Amino acid sequence: MGLPQSSIRLRIRYGETDQMGTYYNARVLDWFECGRTEFLRAAGVPYAQMEQRGVFLPLVQAHINYAGRARYDDELIVTTTASPEGRARIRFDVHITHADRSSEVANGYTIHAAVNANGKPIRPPTWLTDTLSQNRMA
Amino acid sequence: MGLPQSSIRLRIRYGETDQMGTYYNARVLDWFECGRTEFLRAAGVPYAQMEQRGVFLPLVQAHINYAGRARYDDELIVTTTASPEGRARIRFDVHITHADRSSEVANGYTIHAAVNANGKPIRPPTWLTDTLSQNRMA
Amino acid sequence: MGLPQSSIRLRIRYGETDQMGTYYNARVLDWFECGRTEFLRAAGVPYAQMEQRGVFLPLVQAHINYAGRARYDDELIVTTTASPEGRARIRFDVHITHADRSSEVANGYTIHAAVNANGKPIRPPTWLTDTLSQNRMA
Amino acid sequence: MGLPQSSIRLRIRYGETDQMGTYYNARVLDWFECGRTEFLRAAGVPYAQMEQRGVFLPLVQAHINYAGRARYDDELIVTTTASPEGRARIRFDVHITHADRSSEVANGYTIHAAVNANGKPIRPPTWLTDTLSQNRMA
Repeated sequence: MGLPQSSIRLRIRYGETDQMGTYYNARVLDWFECGRTEFLRAAGVPYAQMEQRGVFLPLVQAHINYAGRARYDDELIVTTTASPEGRARIRFDVHITHADRSSEVANGYTIHAAVNANGKPIRPPTWLTDTLSQNRMA
Repeated sequence: MGLPQSSIRLRIRYGETDQMGTYYNARVLDWFECGRTEFLRAAGVPYAQMEQRGVFLPLVQAHINYAGRARYDDELIVTTTASPEGRARIRFDVHITHADRSSEVANGYTIHAAVNANGKPIRPPTWLTDTLSQNRMA
Repeated sequence: MGLPQSSIRLRIRYGETDQMGTYYNARVLDWFECGRTEFLRAAGVPYAQMEQRGVFLPLVQAHINYAGRARYDDELIVTTTASPEGRARIRFDVHITHADRSSEVANGYTIHAAVNANGKPIRPPTWLTDTLSQNRMA
Repeated sequence: MGLPQSSIRLRIRYGETDQMGTYYNARVLDWFECGRTEFLRAAGVPYAQMEQRGVFLPLVQAHINYAGRARYDDELIVTTTASPEGRARIRFDVHITHADRSSEVANGYTIHAAVNANGKPIRPPTWLTDTLSQNRMA
């Protein structure tokens, strides 16, 4: 029923602000990555272990909508879902909101290929796609 | 004839790599920003001066296609063009290639609103849009 | 008895690694800052509020000893203490260890001036030094 | 006569600022690294090649004195010298000044061990120490 979903909380670090007084735009991609890391851990396939098994998930595409301001020390909630994108790719959708008032900060997605340690494209292994599909049923 | 265009060269810093041995995905947004900075300087409206005049250009959207690998110390060329996006927004398109062999590394765009120092949306001032249009004619 | 102390846990982000397969050296200063932020919150003077009251604590010195390797997704404990440094400065000492095996990752300190919103040096306000001294008694 | 020395210029990126309106403190370590990279290239031993030969130079210590303000788009000069530190270590000293008015921004040093690809300490290879000594004579 519905996509698997994982939520984490994080606070905006001082070093993630810029002189506009809000967070620097590139940081959203760091937060997307924090979301993916915890999503995969929750799904039972920690990314650190995946790389040790020789499966890497480099980005092929990223899209971000900047939806609202957020400042140093604001607590954010990063909610991540995953789904297959065609036969050989995986897509993560991410929503970032303020923890205290649910207002949107940013949302978007990243699309990932699967490659081996030499950077050669591979099909996502079944232990990964099975886990993602199992989760879908959950 | 054609859009105004600005190219800069930069080398991938060690701190911009990750454990995959290539550049970390979020760094592309930093490089897009380096491209915008030099584009605006070349166009005669340095962004630092724009902010002093009270005009800020926060991102409302960003899109990145990751097109090829690049490593520490590789020299890259970042080519930036700008165009109006509707009446109130500005769009920068960016292509990043290897300096020595022209192969693509990444491309994409960012779309920017214009706001004042309080974060209130404003129409992009005419000294900005005129400069961009003049450049278009050049 | 003893210095006030605050501990936080954080996981090494993928974007904080470099091609050596460990964390990039500059990230330690980001983690020191995370430690200071939570130390000051625990001490009752959240840094975000300090800046709103017009007190800024820019760094005047930083020192880092790199003591051991740590990798992507490793959980770290950042322990922070604070003390006055002469009459006008504040010093934070930080130890970073692995959460699971207590082995050292890095340690060091940062020394901070107090300045107002215009960057002018000021004496650290008594509500700050009192809080730090009170904590010392605790 | 005197230590070998290498100078590079760089501009402060927008993403390197923080909400205080100056550069974020951790960025200095990134700039130190840019200085080392160009120092080693000028000395004839590009660091990318060193790593391919199996020699890595991880930091064991870093020290930074923050000496003056600098802002987005300011052009900086990063001047780097190198010297042996005992038998097994290498030290880089770095000064960062404003390009237009020579006023100091930051200075400090980093001390590096030499390790192999597995992270085992090694003596710095003679092709490295010879190059550094030769430079010293130049």
